[in-house]
Amino acid sequence: MWPLLRGLSWRSALARAGRAPLQAGRRADSCYPGSAGELRGEPDRFGGVTVHLTQLHALGHLDAAAFQKALQAAIQQWQSEGRLAVWLHIPILQSRFIAPAATLGFRFHHAESDSSTLTLWLREGPSRLPGYATHQVGVAGQISQRKIIKLVNRSKLKNTWKFPGGLSEPGEDIGDTAIREVFEETGIKSEFRSLLSIRQQHRSPGAFGKSDMYIICRLNPNSFTIDFCHHECLRCEWMDLNALAKTENTTLITRRVARLLLYGYREGFDKIDFTMEELPAVYTGLFYKLYHKHLPDNYKTMTGID
Amino acid sequence: MWPLLRGLSWRSALARAGRAPLQAGRRADSCYPGSAGELRGEPDRFGGVTVHLTQLHALGHLDAAAFQKALQAAIQQWQSEGRLAVWLHIPILQSRFIAPAATLGFRFHHAESDSSTLTLWLREGPSRLPGYATHQVGVAGQISQRKIIKLVNRSKLKNTWKFPGGLSEPGEDIGDTAIREVFEETGIKSEFRSLLSIRQQHRSPGAFGKSDMYIICRLNPNSFTIDFCHHECLRCEWMDLNALAKTENTTLITRRVARLLLYGYREGFDKIDFTMEELPAVYTGLFYKLYHKHLPDNYKTMTGID
Repeated sequence: MWPLLRGLSWRSALARAGRAPLQAGRRADSCYPGSAGELRGEPDRFGGVTVHLTQLHALGHLDAAAFQKALQAAIQQWQSEGRLAVWLHIPILQSRFIAPAATLGFRFHHAESDSSTLTLWLREGPSRLPGYATHQVGVAGQISQRKIIKLVNRSKLKNTWKFPGGLSEPGEDIGDTAIREVFEETGIKSEFRSLLSIRQQHRSPGAFGKSDMYIICRLNPNSFTIDFCHHECLRCEWMDLNALAKTENTTLITRRVARLLLYGYREGFDKIDFTMEELPAVYTGLFYKLYHKHLPDNYKTMTGID
Repeated sequence: MWPLLRGLSWRSALARAGRAPLQAGRRADSCYPGSAGELRGEPDRFGGVTVHLTQLHALGHLDAAAFQKALQAAIQQWQSEGRLAVWLHIPILQSRFIAPAATLGFRFHHAESDSSTLTLWLREGPSRLPGYATHQVGVAGQISQRKIIKLVNRSKLKNTWKFPGGLSEPGEDIGDTAIREVFEETGIKSEFRSLLSIRQQHRSPGAFGKSDMYIICRLNPNSFTIDFCHHECLRCEWMDLNALAKTENTTLITRRVARLLLYGYREGFDKIDFTMEELPAVYTGLFYKLYHKHLPDNYKTMTGID
């Protein structure tokens, strides 16, 4: 649901440049004869133009120098049309065109698997194009029993108790990561109940310079016999919550969450939970998961608000 | 604080292959004579080897075919040493080496600005290397007054009321994004109070195929005069919470959060808030922000737990 924003939007920059957004998209495409064929760009409604190198007919025979010449001519044309930026999609096997584009000012926006995307901001000042994904998401599951599942991970230099958990796979829901990781690491089957805590850390080691969002979920166990992963963990056992909340042999975040769970046992988990609701997105037809404090069921009656 | 994990860890794969993790890192480096100079790899403690092309002395004169030959020989050597994977870092101006690496099975792991990173999994089965960032993070700020700030964004095809907000900049804290976006869009100065709600959506439009985490914060206003950004917004005004909770002219998530805020006014914001605490990370010396239900100050006295 996010428009292509970064601070002030790209659209704003266009508006400031005196052009209404959709005017820039009137032409279906723009073709530029280069020394080795057409360099075709597709305008978008944000004032940018997108080039897919796969659509270049003469790609197989085009050398890097000829491509650079054609691209330079096309950039001049796009600038004269008032375009804001260029998006250049390059299949991995055509990566010989990356360096020529870089000499004209293009930089990587992102790359994944078998293609890369480069961008060039055509206006004065820093680029206002939206960035790429900034966070990895790790999820830990906390089985909500008086005795909770804890393990000592092999990976740490200093062995401390931790909650079972790991990184989300692409497209995986928070709760599903928690359930999967708890099962892989401990052999315990469980179901999602709520979201207990969120940690944001920047420059996180292992995140390739990006930020880390670490989310701790509360799970209900469906089985109790531990069959833990000996390759990842040195020990795994049920541990008393009170003992965990008091031990020094763990991290601050673990003690905080242990304390939180004890509070939940005492006062009710509704006091500490963000529960989940699945809702339809307005424009896309997709569904999303929304987490917040669950309001009492009689709240509608009390307030008349659905 | 995340190890290089993806499902079962890379370390696990190494252990299963019968090698202790640190044994693979005994040699300080491995040099491979190629047809055009040395291809130097640095072993890591996870069983991988990393090659920085910037460290190749003969790089300037190396052609793509010679590089491919040297790389192929090096791969065979790394495989014979029991290495699990190769990380290949390529400066953008040396991108002519990407396609030759791709023909040997390398794929993009990520790329940003002026360099790309490719990986090759050297074992049977799918790669178990950790992925790159999977989420963009958007943050909206909700001024906690009986009348709350709402605006109509220009970007939507259907104009609906929304909370002011936008995408986090790299390395920016959730609360800082909320404060910045509210100020940029409405002119209202504010301070962070709590985190109210989190939405996770996959395949989010505008996220380049990645997932979107959208977080709504509660802010306290430090100013009240609206001076909104006309480039991004059509309208911006203080709106009665009750009216917002009941209007059809907004999104489900906005109505949910309006209802949540009304509940907070009635029962106390401590009932709906995840508050923030800054804590030191154990291993890195960095600090992180932790969000969860704030426990009552007398809880320590009640339970004897710090």
